Amino acid sequence: MSNEKPYVSYFRPAIDAMLGYTPGEQPKGTDVLKLNTNESPYPPAPGVRKMLADFDYERLRLYPDPMATEVRSEIAALFGLTYENVIAGNGSDDILNIAIRCFCDAERPVAFLDPSYSLYPTLAGLQGAKCIRIPLDSTDFTMPENLLELAEPANLLIITRPNAPTGNSFPKSTMAKICENFNGVVLIDEAYADFASDNCADFVKKYPNVIVARTFSKSRSLAGLRFGYAIAHKTMIDGLMKMKDSYNVSMLTQRLALASLWDRAYFTDCVAKIKVAREMLLLGLLDIGFKVVESETNFLFASPPDGDAATYFKKLREKNVIVRYFPGPVTGKYVRISIGTEQQVSRLFLLTRQIYS
Amino acid sequence: MSNEKPYVSYFRPAIDAMLGYTPGEQPKGTDVLKLNTNESPYPPAPGVRKMLADFDYERLRLYPDPMATEVRSEIAALFGLTYENVIAGNGSDDILNIAIRCFCDAERPVAFLDPSYSLYPTLAGLQGAKCIRIPLDSTDFTMPENLLELAEPANLLIITRPNAPTGNSFPKSTMAKICENFNGVVLIDEAYADFASDNCADFVKKYPNVIVARTFSKSRSLAGLRFGYAIAHKTMIDGLMKMKDSYNVSMLTQRLALASLWDRAYFTDCVAKIKVAREMLLLGLLDIGFKVVESETNFLFASPPDGDAATYFKKLREKNVIVRYFPGPVTGKYVRISIGTEQQVSRLFLLTRQIYS
Repeated sequence: MSNEKPYVSYFRPAIDAMLGYTPGEQPKGTDVLKLNTNESPYPPAPGVRKMLADFDYERLRLYPDPMATEVRSEIAALFGLTYENVIAGNGSDDILNIAIRCFCDAERPVAFLDPSYSLYPTLAGLQGAKCIRIPLDSTDFTMPENLLELAEPANLLIITRPNAPTGNSFPKSTMAKICENFNGVVLIDEAYADFASDNCADFVKKYPNVIVARTFSKSRSLAGLRFGYAIAHKTMIDGLMKMKDSYNVSMLTQRLALASLWDRAYFTDCVAKIKVAREMLLLGLLDIGFKVVESETNFLFASPPDGDAATYFKKLREKNVIVRYFPGPVTGKYVRISIGTEQQVSRLFLLTRQIYS
Repeated sequence: MSNEKPYVSYFRPAIDAMLGYTPGEQPKGTDVLKLNTNESPYPPAPGVRKMLADFDYERLRLYPDPMATEVRSEIAALFGLTYENVIAGNGSDDILNIAIRCFCDAERPVAFLDPSYSLYPTLAGLQGAKCIRIPLDSTDFTMPENLLELAEPANLLIITRPNAPTGNSFPKSTMAKICENFNGVVLIDEAYADFASDNCADFVKKYPNVIVARTFSKSRSLAGLRFGYAIAHKTMIDGLMKMKDSYNVSMLTQRLALASLWDRAYFTDCVAKIKVAREMLLLGLLDIGFKVVESETNFLFASPPDGDAATYFKKLREKNVIVRYFPGPVTGKYVRISIGTEQQVSRLFLLTRQIYS
C-alpha cells in the first residue's frame, strides 16, 4: 500500500500507549484437548438447535429489538424480577465495559481483586480510569480484611465471585457487608456462579448500588453466541441502558439465548456433570500431590507438586493438552484447568500422573 | 422491589444528564408497510440461508475468532487490501463508537454534518467529547465552503457520504481535498454507499488519516445480524483494534456475513432493484409537486407540496404506512421514505396521490 501522506497518529495518547490485543490460543488440530478458556465441553441446549433450525432467515433484514425485551423478561423471571431490572449485553464483557464507562473516568477509579479477570484493567485503561488492585491472600486467595479501606477511593468495585483464575468464592456475609458499606457501585461478576454453592442475585432487591453480571459463555455452552446480562435496581438499569449500543444484541443471539433459558433441565444436568468431573479431577490431583484451590467454578487452579507450573503447562502442551498459564509471582505457580467431560478430565489426569510419576 | 438502602446515583454526571434511549418504532401488525428505518425489502442472500441451515450449533460452545480473520480477508479482497486493513464490528455503530473513543475526549472534539446521523452526538456525549456541527445548506444540503475551517478544532471529522437523512452525496474531489487537508482523522461513513454512483474506499490507500465505514444493515439485508466494518491504513486498524471488545462479533454473525459476501450476484441484483424503485418513486413524487433531494441512498428525503411534512407523516401513519419524520426547523419540512419493493413503493405513491389530490 503506497501512502502519499505520511502516517501521523491522532489516537488519544492513552490508546497509543496501550499494547495491542493478543488473542487467546485457537488450536487447529482436532486431537487437541482444549481446557484453556473455560468453555463448556457440552453442546448448547437441544432447544438452541431447534430454534436455529426453525429461524426464518428472512427476518434478518430487519433490525433486532433494541430493548431485547423478551429475553430480558425471561431472565427476570429466574430471579423474581421484571425486565426493567435486566440489561442484555453482547457477552458479559459488554456489560463490564458499559459499567466502567458509566462509573469511571480520570477522577473515578475502579477497584478489583488481584489476581482476577484481566479484562478489568484493559477496560479501565481504555476509559482513562485508575485501577485499585486489591491483593488477595497469596496462599488461599481470600479477600483482605481491609478491602473496604483499600477500595474507598474507587467509584466502582468489581468483585468476581467465584473468582477467576483462582476458582474460590467468598463468604456471602462478607459480600453483604461490602455492598452495605461501600460508597459506590459494587459489580459482582458472577460469570461462574452457576457452578457455585450460592450466589448474590438476591442482593439486587436489597442494595440499589449492586449490579450482578452473568454470562452464557460458560454454564450455557454459548461462548460463540455472545450473550451476557446484568440484574440491578431499575434506576441503575435505566442508566446502564443509556450507555449500551442501541442494537448491541443481534436478533439470532436474542432468539438463541431465549431457547437456552427455556431448557432448564438440560442446563441443570450439564452443570451437575461438570461439578462431578471437577470433584473427580480435584481428588486425583490432590492424590498426586498438587495444591488445588477449592473451586466453585468450571475450572481448577492447581499447583504441581514441585511448584513448577510453567514446566507442567509445557509438558501438557507437548501432549496436545492446552490449559492456561498466567505468569507472575503469585499466579505463576499454578495452571488453570477448565473442566471438560469425565473422559477429558481422565485423559488429563492420566497424563499428569505420567508426568509426576 | 423493596430496597433497604436508598438509591444514590454513582453515574458520571454526564451520563445522568443524558436522556434515556428511545427505541425506533417496531410495528406489530402484518399489514403495516414499514419504510422508516432504511432496511432492505429483500431477504438476505440465499447463501445466508444455506449457511444458517448448515451451521453446526455445537460449535457455539466455543468462543468466536476474536480477530474475525476470515471475514476480514473476504472484505479486504473486495478492495484489493489485506485483512490488516479491515476491522469488523458488531454493526457499524460499533465502529463509530470505537472511533469516537479512540480519537475524542474532553479536549478532542468530533465534527460532523448537520443534519446527519443522530447517533454521532450521542456517542460524543457518552465519551464527554464536544460536538462541532457543520451546517449543510438548508436548501440543497451541500457542504459549506468553509468546512475545513469549521472542523479545524476537531480531532475526528465524520462525513456521512451519501448523507442521512438527506440522501445526497458530495463531490469526490471535495472529499479528497478534505482528507488531504484536515489535521485529524476523517471517518467517511459509507452506510449507504452501495446505492451511490461512487464511493471513497480507494482513499484508504492514499490517506493514512482516513477510515471508511460500511454496514451490512442496508444493502445486504442483514440489519438483524449486526455486522459492519471499516477499512483503513494498517496502523490505523491496529489502533482501532485495541478499543474493540475482544469478542465483539459473534460466531454466527461472522459466518453469515461471510456467506453474504460470497453471494455477489444476488447483492448486485438487490441494489439494482432498489435503485429502480427509487427512481420510480422520485418521478412520482416530483409529479405530485414534492420537493425531493437527489438521492444516492435507499431512501428519499421528500417535502410535500404544502411543506407540511408532519401532517403527511400522520396521514400515512393512519393508512398503515410508517415513514420517518425528524422534527426541526430544517428537517421538519421533509419525511424520509425508505425504498421498498416496486410494489411497496407503488402503494406509498398511490396513497400519497390520494392525500394530495
